[in-house]
Amino acid sequence: MSALNITHDPARRSWIESANAGDTDFPIQNLPFGAFVRDGETRTGVAIGDRVVDLRALHDLALLDGDAATACASACDSTLNALMALDARHVSALRAALSDLLKHDAPARSRLTSSIDAVLPLAADVELTLPCAIGDYTDFLTSLHHTERHGRYKGLADPLPVAFKSLPIAYHGRASSLRVSGGDVRRPYGQFRDADGNVRFGPAPMLDFELELAAVIGRGNALTRPIAIDDARNHVFGYCLLNDWSAKSIQWFEQVLGPFLGKSFHSSVSPWLVTEEALAPFRKAAPSRAAGDPAILPHLRGSHDQQNGGLHLDLYAHLSTAAMRSDRMSAMQITHTHPDNLYWTFAQMIAHHTSNGCNLRTGDLLGSGTISGASDASRACLTELSEAGKKPLALPNGESRIALEDGDEIVLSARASSPGAVSIGFGECRGRIAAALPYPHAGEH
Amino acid sequence: MSALNITHDPARRSWIESANAGDTDFPIQNLPFGAFVRDGETRTGVAIGDRVVDLRALHDLALLDGDAATACASACDSTLNALMALDARHVSALRAALSDLLKHDAPARSRLTSSIDAVLPLAADVELTLPCAIGDYTDFLTSLHHTERHGRYKGLADPLPVAFKSLPIAYHGRASSLRVSGGDVRRPYGQFRDADGNVRFGPAPMLDFELELAAVIGRGNALTRPIAIDDARNHVFGYCLLNDWSAKSIQWFEQVLGPFLGKSFHSSVSPWLVTEEALAPFRKAAPSRAAGDPAILPHLRGSHDQQNGGLHLDLYAHLSTAAMRSDRMSAMQITHTHPDNLYWTFAQMIAHHTSNGCNLRTGDLLGSGTISGASDASRACLTELSEAGKKPLALPNGESRIALEDGDEIVLSARASSPGAVSIGFGECRGRIAAALPYPHAGEH
Repeated sequence: MSALNITHDPARRSWIESANAGDTDFPIQNLPFGAFVRDGETRTGVAIGDRVVDLRALHDLALLDGDAATACASACDSTLNALMALDARHVSALRAALSDLLKHDAPARSRLTSSIDAVLPLAADVELTLPCAIGDYTDFLTSLHHTERHGRYKGLADPLPVAFKSLPIAYHGRASSLRVSGGDVRRPYGQFRDADGNVRFGPAPMLDFELELAAVIGRGNALTRPIAIDDARNHVFGYCLLNDWSAKSIQWFEQVLGPFLGKSFHSSVSPWLVTEEALAPFRKAAPSRAAGDPAILPHLRGSHDQQNGGLHLDLYAHLSTAAMRSDRMSAMQITHTHPDNLYWTFAQMIAHHTSNGCNLRTGDLLGSGTISGASDASRACLTELSEAGKKPLALPNGESRIALEDGDEIVLSARASSPGAVSIGFGECRGRIAAALPYPHAGEH
Repeated sequence: MSALNITHDPARRSWIESANAGDTDFPIQNLPFGAFVRDGETRTGVAIGDRVVDLRALHDLALLDGDAATACASACDSTLNALMALDARHVSALRAALSDLLKHDAPARSRLTSSIDAVLPLAADVELTLPCAIGDYTDFLTSLHHTERHGRYKGLADPLPVAFKSLPIAYHGRASSLRVSGGDVRRPYGQFRDADGNVRFGPAPMLDFELELAAVIGRGNALTRPIAIDDARNHVFGYCLLNDWSAKSIQWFEQVLGPFLGKSFHSSVSPWLVTEEALAPFRKAAPSRAAGDPAILPHLRGSHDQQNGGLHLDLYAHLSTAAMRSDRMSAMQITHTHPDNLYWTFAQMIAHHTSNGCNLRTGDLLGSGTISGASDASRACLTELSEAGKKPLALPNGESRIALEDGDEIVLSARASSPGAVSIGFGECRGRIAAALPYPHAGEH
């Protein structure tokens, strides 16, 4: 696991002024990895302030050597997968080299400023895209409060599933419909019961967002070879935000073997992978368990994970409606939560996921599940914010919501803060609900 | 949809004598596509009798032109994905050209025989591998009898889920652990309840097989653009067998949001993709529904699909144990079933899967679910064959089974037959249970 190193030095500032602003998500201490389209070509990059290091252009300058050069060469591709599959020391070396090139007194600064738009384009001038090819997407259910509330809404006598405290519950999600932050989220069609209890097919009436944190796998494991709990975080390349858009009306009707079409129409991820190393200053102990909770089974109990599996991270969801934007109103913060609301750590999710020998591959995405806490402010989806529709969420302009309407936009964000460290952010995960299209083949039969 | 054409001509025979044997799965009328490893390189090929056409070697002979040449060029790769993404006419042209090259009086025969081991190696001399890169794997639950029996085993008052007759129920499976037929299936570890009801972690005691048919997607669809029911089969490249190995003890404990570690340790597929075109002579009407069943909603009701969505196909499972093999006993046929036991057609599965706008990609795998019928012979997993353990399956050597033991081998096979057509087969889907490895990190904590 990465110890603190020069890339975390809070005194370090960048010659890129936007990276020194107190509210930037991307100070020189962050250096998250992503991918972007430029002149029709997909390239990989690193965020710094309001700019993006184009790793292919940097590679062509031949400023790097050793492990950093190896890492940069492997990033000369349309995805980060080759870089992510490398041993962590390569990525660490590349981040250290980037930090040295971007610090305010960098000797090589003039080599970069002389071709700044080629090597460090403005983020606003490129189109961010998915950072890596995602083979499998797994979504967990690890918030006790989210799970209990939904159990209550369903009227279950015991709202928490029996297995919840024995293992991190999960299901396989749909990889093909993962999309990077931004753009439209098209309202899906589906089968659901109408108010009279009849089965209908049409645009889904009850759309929701779900605020999640996700880990992206770096080095994978071979089939039949589980990953040990205290080795698990060495298999994480980085983290991003995930909005697991849900069509509740479809889900309620279809769900026998887990979520399917109620989720697979679109899932949004934030474009930047914040590395394990960048998060090192924000680590803390894993959340403690309640007295009387069952003992953690040995393969899910790691001493390093217990001491270090938590994160000082604030997570937010903001909502704006078409009417609010038309009135130039700011988006309303509707959720403020943090990873302490997860009953299981990402290391435990990985150890469990591979405990049967299942292989994780570079680029696989593991969602935490909706990160709802006990407080009202920390409810991380509209279903909970509206108490399953019983208490519509009031908006500042007099509108209210029990579900997302066409034109509603959700923006997820996150910020890691800890005394003595420079705060870093995740960038945003944004999506706006677009009206259902006419069903393409209606009336043809 | 492909009409009958020259490749189906029952009078056509091949100069490769093994392709003319009555019991071969791969007569000249079949020509299924796959991939294989040869001298460390993965290539694509077509099965004919006991040989495999090496499509790269064939391409190098420059015997093809037009669409067939285009198709063959796109098959010069380590997977079939590029070929599968082409319009169906290209694949059709390649099959027709192959049929002409391999027929008994082919003018080009000497060009092939003079380099037979380069262009047409024996299947026994190459290692078959997964035919394509599989992005997403979806598993359906479409056998009414399988579903009802499992509902009864669980003691449900209404053993059939409410949605079963409204839509083809499905869940996302794990793509990373799909493996081609053959070799070991390692017994997984997992959490389950022991006889005293305590939660344990250890090698899973209750392993099962599940006999399924799977469709593999050729051309995909764009996100937000559903596929119409009567266009659905144009998006299928071909079919293979699927053994959805299941660790029932893990599944019973973990399952809240569908199957997860109880399935993701290994799933086996047969190596050859039998094309839609090759199956054309074996098409028949979709299975009829019982009086009183709900009407099929318009987006799942296609006139072509109703007339043509069924298949004359016999599906088999054979079991041999270590003791049986050591006594040189033949494997025992334990299941004989057919696709009429599916309540939904593959076209309906595809139309449903994409009805919410979810995009299918080339190479995606759609499993039918366990194809059990009403008869005892057609029970397509050990759980049903043993009536959930109440009636152990008796084997010819005095052994019995309620679950698979280490050393047990399952072989799935399938054969399409229809009057006036030459029967074709699917090749086999084989796997043998291997004892659990010592848990790699036990005692380290």
